Amino acid sequence: MSCITPSEYTQVIGLKEVVDFCVRCMEKVSVSHSHSESLANVLVAGDYRGHYSHGLNRLEMYVADIEKGVCVCNKEPVIVKETVSTALVNGGNLLGPVVGNFAMQLAIKKARSTGIGWIAVNGSNHYGIAGWYSLMAVKEGLIGMSFTNTSPLVYPTRSKGRALGTNPLTVAAPSSKAGDEFVLDMATSAVALGKLEMCRRRGLSIPDGWAADDSGKSTNDPAVGISKGALMPLGGLEHTSGYKGYGLGMMVELFCGILSGAHYGSNIRQWMKTERPANLGQGFVAIDPNAFGFGFEDRLSDYMRMMRELPRVDDSEPVLVPGDPERRHMAECDELGGIPYPPVLIESMASLNRLADRLGVARMPVLKTL
Amino acid sequence: MSCITPSEYTQVIGLKEVVDFCVRCMEKVSVSHSHSESLANVLVAGDYRGHYSHGLNRLEMYVADIEKGVCVCNKEPVIVKETVSTALVNGGNLLGPVVGNFAMQLAIKKARSTGIGWIAVNGSNHYGIAGWYSLMAVKEGLIGMSFTNTSPLVYPTRSKGRALGTNPLTVAAPSSKAGDEFVLDMATSAVALGKLEMCRRRGLSIPDGWAADDSGKSTNDPAVGISKGALMPLGGLEHTSGYKGYGLGMMVELFCGILSGAHYGSNIRQWMKTERPANLGQGFVAIDPNAFGFGFEDRLSDYMRMMRELPRVDDSEPVLVPGDPERRHMAECDELGGIPYPPVLIESMASLNRLADRLGVARMPVLKTL
Repeated sequence: MSCITPSEYTQVIGLKEVVDFCVRCMEKVSVSHSHSESLANVLVAGDYRGHYSHGLNRLEMYVADIEKGVCVCNKEPVIVKETVSTALVNGGNLLGPVVGNFAMQLAIKKARSTGIGWIAVNGSNHYGIAGWYSLMAVKEGLIGMSFTNTSPLVYPTRSKGRALGTNPLTVAAPSSKAGDEFVLDMATSAVALGKLEMCRRRGLSIPDGWAADDSGKSTNDPAVGISKGALMPLGGLEHTSGYKGYGLGMMVELFCGILSGAHYGSNIRQWMKTERPANLGQGFVAIDPNAFGFGFEDRLSDYMRMMRELPRVDDSEPVLVPGDPERRHMAECDELGGIPYPPVLIESMASLNRLADRLGVARMPVLKTL
Repeated sequence: MSCITPSEYTQVIGLKEVVDFCVRCMEKVSVSHSHSESLANVLVAGDYRGHYSHGLNRLEMYVADIEKGVCVCNKEPVIVKETVSTALVNGGNLLGPVVGNFAMQLAIKKARSTGIGWIAVNGSNHYGIAGWYSLMAVKEGLIGMSFTNTSPLVYPTRSKGRALGTNPLTVAAPSSKAGDEFVLDMATSAVALGKLEMCRRRGLSIPDGWAADDSGKSTNDPAVGISKGALMPLGGLEHTSGYKGYGLGMMVELFCGILSGAHYGSNIRQWMKTERPANLGQGFVAIDPNAFGFGFEDRLSDYMRMMRELPRVDDSEPVLVPGDPERRHMAECDELGGIPYPPVLIESMASLNRLADRLGVARMPVLKTL
């Protein structure tokens, strides 16, 4: 749930302007228009939904990956093997969103024909917010799921070795009201690395169970967690059931690197190191609710209403369901006419201007400053 | 991970004796031999794997359900709707394990033909340990998953209304070494109710984030959590990411009650209340790893080895993978020649003798007392 309060926002940029800027930059480094758009749409969705750690601030990384040839852009993903309901896809080391869109479209096609499509992918790269892919299925009236493995940043329970990624999972499903989807989109670590970075920049300490130092003990210093230690799995320490988050992180890996034959666990290259292709593993699932009991959408709406109307611990804090924090953020953006980029992201905004100048493309126009 | 230390064990009972006793009791209340065996096998697996809260101590509940007619025993589950890869099954209010075995066998059959089988079930009952069903798939060389909704015992984040079950999920998969499967089998609450009960009987306080009082605030008194309050989702309080556990609990419900049209959320009857049929929703999935990348089992074994060999926080505490605590418990049982029932379960052992006497069947023979 968002850490960012409106009073801290500074620059507002229109959604179309963000997309166009990403496309300009990627095309300039020889990526096709269609691949550039695939990436741009996922990045802007990240910021628009309030997941700033998976948006525009990662554009430079994608540009650099193409420039260095760590990531390629001149082909399409390939179906290696398939049945009516499953497929193994080789991402060919293309941009993550190009691979993800291809695989999820395939899952959707299979779900339309047999009720379910399950696709395992190898040879992929960072694919942005996982929720983008589950929502692709929702737009077609289907339930969507996706998983990806990531660079090792988390200590498995009882260990002091970075061997587990933040390994996110997402499940999204359509309700009877357009726009009111169920969208679970979460890292299986207690928190994502971005949350530690935000606390460090603000000089805040972090609660027990978010991160550990290099001896594996819980730390309250975000800088220690980032540099010398690691994140902890969802649940935190062992006595508060951190082994369940660890198990969930392994489950995601099982459906990613292990199922597809991509890299896995501590074999995945280190975060922000690009000495070799990422070869990430990912999973994409689409399920047609009409293959099961009639009235799925109505039941889901009723279930979400049931949760939202529960008695509150604190009257000022509404009970939310997965997707609500993002909906609130998108409504804020719509009111502002664009995406508000808060001060903690100014640094990357300045560096995006430098990127534009270096590539020789137009800078991103700012709509207004708050 | 087990709370029970060997020094506390008292009575050891052979596995076959436990199964035979369960079958005797169920047959005596007119359940067919095959249905009785289905139940008996799941219950003994619960105890053998160390999940004592889902074993023999629930036998009386199942007997009572049949005697009261809350649960029926004179028919078979029915396929309501199916595709080559999916099915909706009506459990007909039969014993949970009868329904679960039927549905998982169907999932396995479909996975053999199309690489995946996904079954949603309504009209079911308590089905014992979830891991039983995922392991059925592993025995066939497949990946297995299962979920079930349960009676509301958990507060969703920010609320003080019991509206979420402990909603367990399980994923199991075959490695290259027989018996060394990956078996994640976990409640999506921070802990299961049984863990609170165990602490209460022993007069122990519980950590923050396990349970809350009736105002929704975290409590350290297990009795308060059991009687007046509720369990908390995995992750505990909101600032330690309890909303992720809450989201996972809702995800399980989405694949159970919402997908199948069974009861869901706070509509499910209260725990231990049997005024009406449970009409639980469940999900069963089988996936053939050979439909994807070759060498799945080898990669999984290597991944588990990688985790187990990580540097330890505490040299005396090995890094485990999901399935290891259960393997350790089963090895202890094998060494003892049966299942050790610890003192906290003596009360239910005595009551099982009373059950035997009331039904007029032979009591369960004790192999030895430690």
